[in-house]
Amino acid sequence: MVDFAAIQAAHARIQPHIHLTPVLTSERLNATSGARLFFKAENFQKVGAFKARGATNAVLALSAEVAARGVATHSSGNHAAALARAARLRGIPAHIVMPSNSSAVKVRAVEGYGGRIVFCAPNQAAREAACAQVIAETGASLVHPYEDERVIAGQGTATVELLAQVPDLDVVLCPVGGGGLLAGTALASRHLRPGLRVVAVEPAQAGDAAESFRRGERTPWAQNNTIADGLRTNIGTTNFAIMQRAVDDIVTVTEAAIIEAMRTIWQTLKIVIEPSAAVPYAALLESTSAFAGRRVGLILTGGNVDLDALPWSAPKSPA
Amino acid sequence: MVDFAAIQAAHARIQPHIHLTPVLTSERLNATSGARLFFKAENFQKVGAFKARGATNAVLALSAEVAARGVATHSSGNHAAALARAARLRGIPAHIVMPSNSSAVKVRAVEGYGGRIVFCAPNQAAREAACAQVIAETGASLVHPYEDERVIAGQGTATVELLAQVPDLDVVLCPVGGGGLLAGTALASRHLRPGLRVVAVEPAQAGDAAESFRRGERTPWAQNNTIADGLRTNIGTTNFAIMQRAVDDIVTVTEAAIIEAMRTIWQTLKIVIEPSAAVPYAALLESTSAFAGRRVGLILTGGNVDLDALPWSAPKSPA
Repeated sequence: MVDFAAIQAAHARIQPHIHLTPVLTSERLNATSGARLFFKAENFQKVGAFKARGATNAVLALSAEVAARGVATHSSGNHAAALARAARLRGIPAHIVMPSNSSAVKVRAVEGYGGRIVFCAPNQAAREAACAQVIAETGASLVHPYEDERVIAGQGTATVELLAQVPDLDVVLCPVGGGGLLAGTALASRHLRPGLRVVAVEPAQAGDAAESFRRGERTPWAQNNTIADGLRTNIGTTNFAIMQRAVDDIVTVTEAAIIEAMRTIWQTLKIVIEPSAAVPYAALLESTSAFAGRRVGLILTGGNVDLDALPWSAPKSPA
Repeated sequence: MVDFAAIQAAHARIQPHIHLTPVLTSERLNATSGARLFFKAENFQKVGAFKARGATNAVLALSAEVAARGVATHSSGNHAAALARAARLRGIPAHIVMPSNSSAVKVRAVEGYGGRIVFCAPNQAAREAACAQVIAETGASLVHPYEDERVIAGQGTATVELLAQVPDLDVVLCPVGGGGLLAGTALASRHLRPGLRVVAVEPAQAGDAAESFRRGERTPWAQNNTIADGLRTNIGTTNFAIMQRAVDDIVTVTEAAIIEAMRTIWQTLKIVIEPSAAVPYAALLESTSAFAGRRVGLILTGGNVDLDALPWSAPKSPA
């Protein structure tokens, strides 16, 4: 089981290869929300997302012999780029299974880090089959995007930093998709500051973790249809178990609140974040009273967004 | 005449009221440009632009008696918000003359800081007349957006910070419109690091400063039509005189390069900057060889942009 020692070891391992990201504040957003907000800006992380932490830890933790055979994953998102980059740091191959309908931006990101892309049909079964085949052919190690203890430990390092940067937080708000970041956040928080309230935030339209948490049983959804593309995954079994014992609460937010939160953060903090990263602030928009007077940490998970497909605009038609 | 002592005095005066903005770097942009780039992120400044520096200095430098009668300016941009904020800091009125076609966003910003807005017809003569009338009626002091020694000294503090943050720069690239920032940048650079090359960058479609510099005579243009709305002004006479003796060179950039630079900075640095702020990086896109191997400072002037009117997208039509 992942413990705090694993998170500490991960931190020591990855520190030379990641950014210590800044914590941003805004008098205006404090005034609007009635709380004191501390935004951990993982949009400034390597590859533009916290995923660099877990992937780098997983790759650097491999023995030389195992590493030499390479790593593999299936992901169309930030984990794909993060794993490709981590593999390049170590000088080993990365085989990335991506659905054939992946955006050109994401394909270019993986290629830019030297990853080898294997396209597959755009469904979960095809992804897993293609990934299994790559592993059978190459002997590469699977680095799952979130159901992996090395990945969870790596993601937990964001909270280790946050609590060192802002020691007296009352609450931390963390988005949940597959749950790797949430599990790492909860484990780091419980150890470093047992009284800190850990609250997961999830798009209502991808609310499997909230339903699971309330029922006390993992309840995957057949469809998670949200603009927050990083959070369309069902929570993993390991991460759900950690969530049950180490997370205090979960709240869900509407699509409208996610878009408003994203836009407000761009406009006020002057930073580019992706829709998934706006989810914690959306919780503040929708339930200000729950956080009034509190010191609230919010993990801004990433900044990889297609500037031609912003939720409030459309590509310009050719003149 | 503005000297370095004035810039130092400005810095001491405004420091409690402004942000020491960070300097951002990117391995990717270094690799693309073949130079080492240091971005001074004034988009994170109070009111979202370097203009907070000059306006705050001008307001805080007033004697109590003069200050009590308030301040006035004509501006539809960042200076308007900056002056309103500075006046509120000091508890005095700010009368802001704005053209009647100013964007709602800009009007709200000034109102948000407690400024009193006086609308006028959207032309230079009407602006100046309205401003003169306000001053006659109220006894307020004019704080011109760029032709003002207190403003120039304030803007120079951005470069004082930049050179302390990155002491061994070879070149600094500074956008030029009215020339207040350029004048302050050049004066601070000449004093602190005489060998530093100071290069102005201007949109070719608003190229009055470049033409003036080459002819050795101030040559205002009748029309400055560029997407970089902060740089549509002709360079002022004081600032042109400072430019002639303290700036090494000026380069002009195309509209296409400004848009590409803006988009690249959003995508890579994950920050929101306005078109004017992208102008220095546009110079690197268009003449990489001139800066190869150099350590280049670039002043990112501001981040106030209408998210519904990005150069590469159009507002979404209602569903």
